[in-house]
Amino acid sequence: MVRVGDDGRVRVAILGASGYTGAELLRLLVRHASVRLVALTADRRAGEPVTAVFPHLGGLGLPDLVAIADVDWSGVDVVFCALPHGTTQEVVAALPAHLLVIDLSADFRLADPALYAEWYGHAHRAPELQPGAVYGLTELAREALATARLIACPGCYPTGAQLPLVPLLEAGQIDPDDIIIDAKSGVSGAGRAAKEASLFAEVAEGIHPYGLTGHRHAPEIEQQLAIAAKRPVAVTFTPHLVPMNRGILSTIYVRTANGAGVEDLRATLLRRYAAEPFVRVVAQGMTPATRHVRGSNHCLIGIFAGRTAGRAILVSAIDNLVKGASGQAVQNMNLALGLAETTGLEQAPLFP
Amino acid sequence: MVRVGDDGRVRVAILGASGYTGAELLRLLVRHASVRLVALTADRRAGEPVTAVFPHLGGLGLPDLVAIADVDWSGVDVVFCALPHGTTQEVVAALPAHLLVIDLSADFRLADPALYAEWYGHAHRAPELQPGAVYGLTELAREALATARLIACPGCYPTGAQLPLVPLLEAGQIDPDDIIIDAKSGVSGAGRAAKEASLFAEVAEGIHPYGLTGHRHAPEIEQQLAIAAKRPVAVTFTPHLVPMNRGILSTIYVRTANGAGVEDLRATLLRRYAAEPFVRVVAQGMTPATRHVRGSNHCLIGIFAGRTAGRAILVSAIDNLVKGASGQAVQNMNLALGLAETTGLEQAPLFP
Amino acid sequence: MVRVGDDGRVRVAILGASGYTGAELLRLLVRHASVRLVALTADRRAGEPVTAVFPHLGGLGLPDLVAIADVDWSGVDVVFCALPHGTTQEVVAALPAHLLVIDLSADFRLADPALYAEWYGHAHRAPELQPGAVYGLTELAREALATARLIACPGCYPTGAQLPLVPLLEAGQIDPDDIIIDAKSGVSGAGRAAKEASLFAEVAEGIHPYGLTGHRHAPEIEQQLAIAAKRPVAVTFTPHLVPMNRGILSTIYVRTANGAGVEDLRATLLRRYAAEPFVRVVAQGMTPATRHVRGSNHCLIGIFAGRTAGRAILVSAIDNLVKGASGQAVQNMNLALGLAETTGLEQAPLFP
Amino acid sequence: MVRVGDDGRVRVAILGASGYTGAELLRLLVRHASVRLVALTADRRAGEPVTAVFPHLGGLGLPDLVAIADVDWSGVDVVFCALPHGTTQEVVAALPAHLLVIDLSADFRLADPALYAEWYGHAHRAPELQPGAVYGLTELAREALATARLIACPGCYPTGAQLPLVPLLEAGQIDPDDIIIDAKSGVSGAGRAAKEASLFAEVAEGIHPYGLTGHRHAPEIEQQLAIAAKRPVAVTFTPHLVPMNRGILSTIYVRTANGAGVEDLRATLLRRYAAEPFVRVVAQGMTPATRHVRGSNHCLIGIFAGRTAGRAILVSAIDNLVKGASGQAVQNMNLALGLAETTGLEQAPLFP
Repeated sequence: MVRVGDDGRVRVAILGASGYTGAELLRLLVRHASVRLVALTADRRAGEPVTAVFPHLGGLGLPDLVAIADVDWSGVDVVFCALPHGTTQEVVAALPAHLLVIDLSADFRLADPALYAEWYGHAHRAPELQPGAVYGLTELAREALATARLIACPGCYPTGAQLPLVPLLEAGQIDPDDIIIDAKSGVSGAGRAAKEASLFAEVAEGIHPYGLTGHRHAPEIEQQLAIAAKRPVAVTFTPHLVPMNRGILSTIYVRTANGAGVEDLRATLLRRYAAEPFVRVVAQGMTPATRHVRGSNHCLIGIFAGRTAGRAILVSAIDNLVKGASGQAVQNMNLALGLAETTGLEQAPLFP
Repeated sequence: MVRVGDDGRVRVAILGASGYTGAELLRLLVRHASVRLVALTADRRAGEPVTAVFPHLGGLGLPDLVAIADVDWSGVDVVFCALPHGTTQEVVAALPAHLLVIDLSADFRLADPALYAEWYGHAHRAPELQPGAVYGLTELAREALATARLIACPGCYPTGAQLPLVPLLEAGQIDPDDIIIDAKSGVSGAGRAAKEASLFAEVAEGIHPYGLTGHRHAPEIEQQLAIAAKRPVAVTFTPHLVPMNRGILSTIYVRTANGAGVEDLRATLLRRYAAEPFVRVVAQGMTPATRHVRGSNHCLIGIFAGRTAGRAILVSAIDNLVKGASGQAVQNMNLALGLAETTGLEQAPLFP
Repeated sequence: MVRVGDDGRVRVAILGASGYTGAELLRLLVRHASVRLVALTADRRAGEPVTAVFPHLGGLGLPDLVAIADVDWSGVDVVFCALPHGTTQEVVAALPAHLLVIDLSADFRLADPALYAEWYGHAHRAPELQPGAVYGLTELAREALATARLIACPGCYPTGAQLPLVPLLEAGQIDPDDIIIDAKSGVSGAGRAAKEASLFAEVAEGIHPYGLTGHRHAPEIEQQLAIAAKRPVAVTFTPHLVPMNRGILSTIYVRTANGAGVEDLRATLLRRYAAEPFVRVVAQGMTPATRHVRGSNHCLIGIFAGRTAGRAILVSAIDNLVKGASGQAVQNMNLALGLAETTGLEQAPLFP
Repeated sequence: MVRVGDDGRVRVAILGASGYTGAELLRLLVRHASVRLVALTADRRAGEPVTAVFPHLGGLGLPDLVAIADVDWSGVDVVFCALPHGTTQEVVAALPAHLLVIDLSADFRLADPALYAEWYGHAHRAPELQPGAVYGLTELAREALATARLIACPGCYPTGAQLPLVPLLEAGQIDPDDIIIDAKSGVSGAGRAAKEASLFAEVAEGIHPYGLTGHRHAPEIEQQLAIAAKRPVAVTFTPHLVPMNRGILSTIYVRTANGAGVEDLRATLLRRYAAEPFVRVVAQGMTPATRHVRGSNHCLIGIFAGRTAGRAILVSAIDNLVKGASGQAVQNMNLALGLAETTGLEQAPLFP
């Protein structure tokens, strides 16, 4: 049972409030009817107002930034952790037990500590917490989320890939041995760190793939697809960097199985997501586009036939900072607290 | 006294729902607690769902598009008019008298029909309505707006220019004879019409001025500044097209008057806007940027000293589709209906 | 034997000089040492200077635009045809026989008139010319180009797809039944026509696929791959629109065949393109990016292993307006005239 | 008399070849008929091929990067210095006397060492070289350039400002006490250093001014305008950051003087630049745009009347990396070596 503040609102801390996912949590939570933001941390900017870091968040009455060490946890009910991987596991291990922890890093996504060590280059420093972590792809994990105390929010690419793929693998309608995910991401996915590769002049007016020899989201995707397929799955996953701020488009090439046709795939996804507030299978003749979900927690899915027999194309579009990160994190908090799932996430997409 | 529907909500029609300002009205009003959208018109797309025109507005339960001629006005309380100029005056003249009309076109902004004819190339077709129209730059017109029945919402450029200039002219702190407005706008300001000049490949990776020999927003700005200065005002106004979707940045060069210094200008604006929910004078050392108001109804204002003696620089940033159009229109509706002025406009800006 | 002008330079006409491929021909040919531009047509802009249509081409001494009907063909040796498909075949059929015709439209690319009719919606109006047309993917057609009188320049997407695929199909190293081409194009590929879908505000800050149910470049790609494979080929081809002016990135998923490994594919392509001036297989550890070929006639190719066994990923990058259109057309002219192949195409790419 | 290599070509070294101006020098000089590139330095990348730093410059036969200390100056005739300010003066002071030095930094632009110290925060470390440096705004300094041994290439903003302003000040047609320069620059002007403010997500989809309290190009502009006006000049200069890679647009507000009208200003500039290969006064009805000079050494200038009496608007457009930096540097080298001034700079602009 989560405690709340005197005003009946949940008291929330955000760790790592100076990055893009931190800013997005602020944007969403400052308008969340059941939340009061009580602590925002950014160790290197401690003592500064939020507007020194994010001028767009002025006039909202937000508390100043503090160091993690200076948070009074007795007045906090829920903590969102938007810290880099590696750091996160050490910080989370030191948090008091009464907190609901919602982590946006990669630290608690991989169930197998050996797999973590292989992809992240060091032994996990809080493996004892891993078994209790709930992998929070909301639409596919509601039951576990309702009682979770540590939620590992999925990566942005894995969110866009799993929403169309998991129901089809569960239905046995696609071949788990022939899945190709060609994903295209906006630049905010690389975070706010000052890197040459993220400079405007290095990204604008061009597109390129990256991580071709192995991206850390590949094992995360495979872990979750294997659960759906009830057998190991290996995917070909190629991320691309697109000159836009936000959005992930995943173009997924699959082979139909067990006699299923493209219309069967469509029917499965329509049925699976009929009642979902944020996932929508687009009408035939329409095509998902990232600009149609910008700033919202929505995921759009389209299903198309390939020109080669037995080949289907799945297309999903999300905002990497919302459904791919901070929005899904808020959605998970709502579920874990027993609040209406859409609270704070009602905004319609911003277009153009 | 405005009528309302059975559920206590105001019944709203939007004329011209297939343009960008129409879409933006939809985005804002669909989440407005006191509004029910009952009619959306787009003559050329009548019979189609909104998602055929704006796929980002799916899943919201919006009514299908209809022709203006098919609207049942008896069930409408407020009408937003987002039609092209010229057309608007004819449509508005034919509307029933019980409606509150909020117009986003240029048709009722110029008080002098002769000035309208000079700049728009034809005699005004509803001059009898002009005297009753309230020019709705909200922060400077609250009293008149409270009882308005026809509201002429300001142009996007005039909004960004007037908010910093009017209080300073009223205070006599700047010279009305030496005002230069160098404005930079995103491309959505040109509307959704298919024009070569608005093509991606004609706009991306470049910047240029336009309308140098006379832009229609110049007489509108001058009309309003003259009221503030209590004498005729002529401004040098240069709009530029910037490769971005949204936003207007106005860099305004003024000469201080009557012994006022830059700090006096700052004090005047701070005092004038201290209690405003949407207008904010930024702290010294900060600079307004359009990305800090994106998607919001905010206006940021900065005041700086020029290098040449007696010269000050005012900088304002707005989202042209929100404070520069649809957001201000909703703000005006709220005032005219006696609702809380910020209803439906609470969203924090979207960055990045 | 092509005739030339008195100054020893080939006299060139460009039909359709007011579109993007026309402008690009002008940019390249105005600096071509062996070319004199003698006629530029644009029926709707006849009588105007080129700078009225393309202000960036000022100060170059170009002739004014004329109507096609007003060209004196006796003073022309080579004609570049940058007209829309359909129109082109009628115009070309009416040209005098002494001309070398280099066509950038789709009209003479498909060898089978029935296939043309199926994809373009009308019977071909000059089928008698089709057998004499040479499909001009330069690197793969030098012999035929040397004696060509009518050259059909490949489409932009087909150029980016064939350069990596053809040598591998010829070598039998990849499975012709399992080819997926996920292509990403800049907006100039849609031409300069004023269409809502090409507006800045509809394209910027987003990405989406299109033509999922059948793009006209698919049969062109299949026709040419079938020649290489010596059997019919069907590909899954998904184009995407990217917010950039220029460039096509093709991410191609193939299955290796006949025991070939990824290194064998690399060896084949390295060998095939070792002496090519414009095609370059990038070093291992490097990744093709469209910004690295911008403004140049270059094609970069990379070869990577997929995570799933037997899967390889080919990546190619071209500038759609240069190697994908006007540059390749100039390259073909050089070959057909016996000039040095790189003349007029020496520019290094423009970055950033 | 500059020495040359055995092949009759000038042997050129570029110091700081890993930045954007360095890359642009490479792009231009690799196609320069009278130049052989013999040494490229980048201390932190010494030993690497150029393609490791700039993949777009592959296949050009460029020498590998070396440390400055490892250059054999006996085989070098001309050195381009594209190093950061401060560093430059120390490096240049240590170069052998036989070299023609063309500096792109700010180190030798300000004639007064005290002014340098005030704006750059430290005493100049090679003040003895300053008197011999020629300020190289090419069109206004040909005589001095012909015999120069140390050329200080102007800043990008000062180039765009001076070309329209200097002839008018010399003619006494504008008021030197009322000059406002509102400049808009692409992001490459900030260089390739990894800074948060230059990240794609911080720049895209927005515009903002910067340096409002004092930009280092202001004293440079004032120094040069004062020479033209034969009296001290202070300007109001406001740079803005625009989401584009390249280009500077300067919108300059002036007051006419001594009875001159806008047409007199136009006549002066037309006359002054009539024979210039790179500077062009656009026809009436046309407007300079940065995209019309992209990748070229061109400067476009327009002259317009303001709405307020006596006010004129000058607009100039350049590519900040070409005429604003590397192109002008090459132009200066050509002059200093007695080569045709346009050699290596013949490229037409790249649009779109």
